[in-house]
Amino acid sequence: MAKMQYYVAASLDGFIADADDKMDWLLQFGYEAYEAHYNAFLAGVGALVMGSGTYQFILDEELQAWPYGDMPIWVLTSRELPTAEGANILFSSEPVELVAARALAAAEGKNVWIVGGGNVAAQFATKGLLEELLVSVMPIVLGSGTPLLPIDGTPLRLTHTETTQFDSGAIGLTYRVEFARADA
Amino acid sequence: MAKMQYYVAASLDGFIADADDKMDWLLQFGYEAYEAHYNAFLAGVGALVMGSGTYQFILDEELQAWPYGDMPIWVLTSRELPTAEGANILFSSEPVELVAARALAAAEGKNVWIVGGGNVAAQFATKGLLEELLVSVMPIVLGSGTPLLPIDGTPLRLTHTETTQFDSGAIGLTYRVEFARADA
Repeated sequence: MAKMQYYVAASLDGFIADADDKMDWLLQFGYEAYEAHYNAFLAGVGALVMGSGTYQFILDEELQAWPYGDMPIWVLTSRELPTAEGANILFSSEPVELVAARALAAAEGKNVWIVGGGNVAAQFATKGLLEELLVSVMPIVLGSGTPLLPIDGTPLRLTHTETTQFDSGAIGLTYRVEFARADA
Repeated sequence: MAKMQYYVAASLDGFIADADDKMDWLLQFGYEAYEAHYNAFLAGVGALVMGSGTYQFILDEELQAWPYGDMPIWVLTSRELPTAEGANILFSSEPVELVAARALAAAEGKNVWIVGGGNVAAQFATKGLLEELLVSVMPIVLGSGTPLLPIDGTPLRLTHTETTQFDSGAIGLTYRVEFARADA
């Protein structure tokens, strides 16, 4: 069954960017140790959702090519943003329920990856639309920064389903979110 | 070699108490799944260090008996606090370097457990006095609360040494702190 997933790397103390909103703390670990895990994850994904900040961050990276092929990508934004060349971008300011429905339909039986940021993932989680959480816990403490999943109100209960031990010392933790999407 | 350790339970998003400074979110998971792990950890401990808030919290719990026997316990405080009956409490407003030295000496070759709060552990970490981090990652997202280890400045690089899978779905992660105490 297709799922709404939030796949993200975080510090042990639950931050996805540092206090200056930078990702250098993460990039220093490189990609190699995570490549197989990421590729296996991405193979199950049929559509992406991200906030405008995350989209802008990916655009600003000096990429040789758009990394997500022609997969449909919903960018939650109310402002005009450039479109990456070759990318299948759909800008939307609709409620997250509608975005989720559209993305799930477009994914054609595959999963929808909520790329970030944490506030975007939290919007879906608050509406019961986040179903799986895949966090790569990096071996570092930042002390402060951008929170992993800043939900309001009721805590999100999780069921642990899988642990991945990376060579780098990172730990991949996968959870099913309890009380998610009623029709899932 | 005796180590300064921070052993603590945290939400997946890195909080050790909720936004109201309560622990109910943690207590709901019970103790049973963690008892053997905790007892094995405690057997290696010869002295404790905690902040006044953590000490007050333990005092306020309705305990049948003081849970740490006659182990020497440094409570970092500048105010007068009651002493728990039968407990070996040493109130101190000295610098953490001195507290660490005294506690390590008193532990007689065993480890020193920094019980909490996160701000107390962060004071030791900032001075390079925190050497091992044992975090039980609970299967829950709180969204906000009291941070696990609110260090200032340079991130704390960790080396992962052990993973424990608890029946409850919690994951115990043990790390050695890099660049800790030079004489360790």
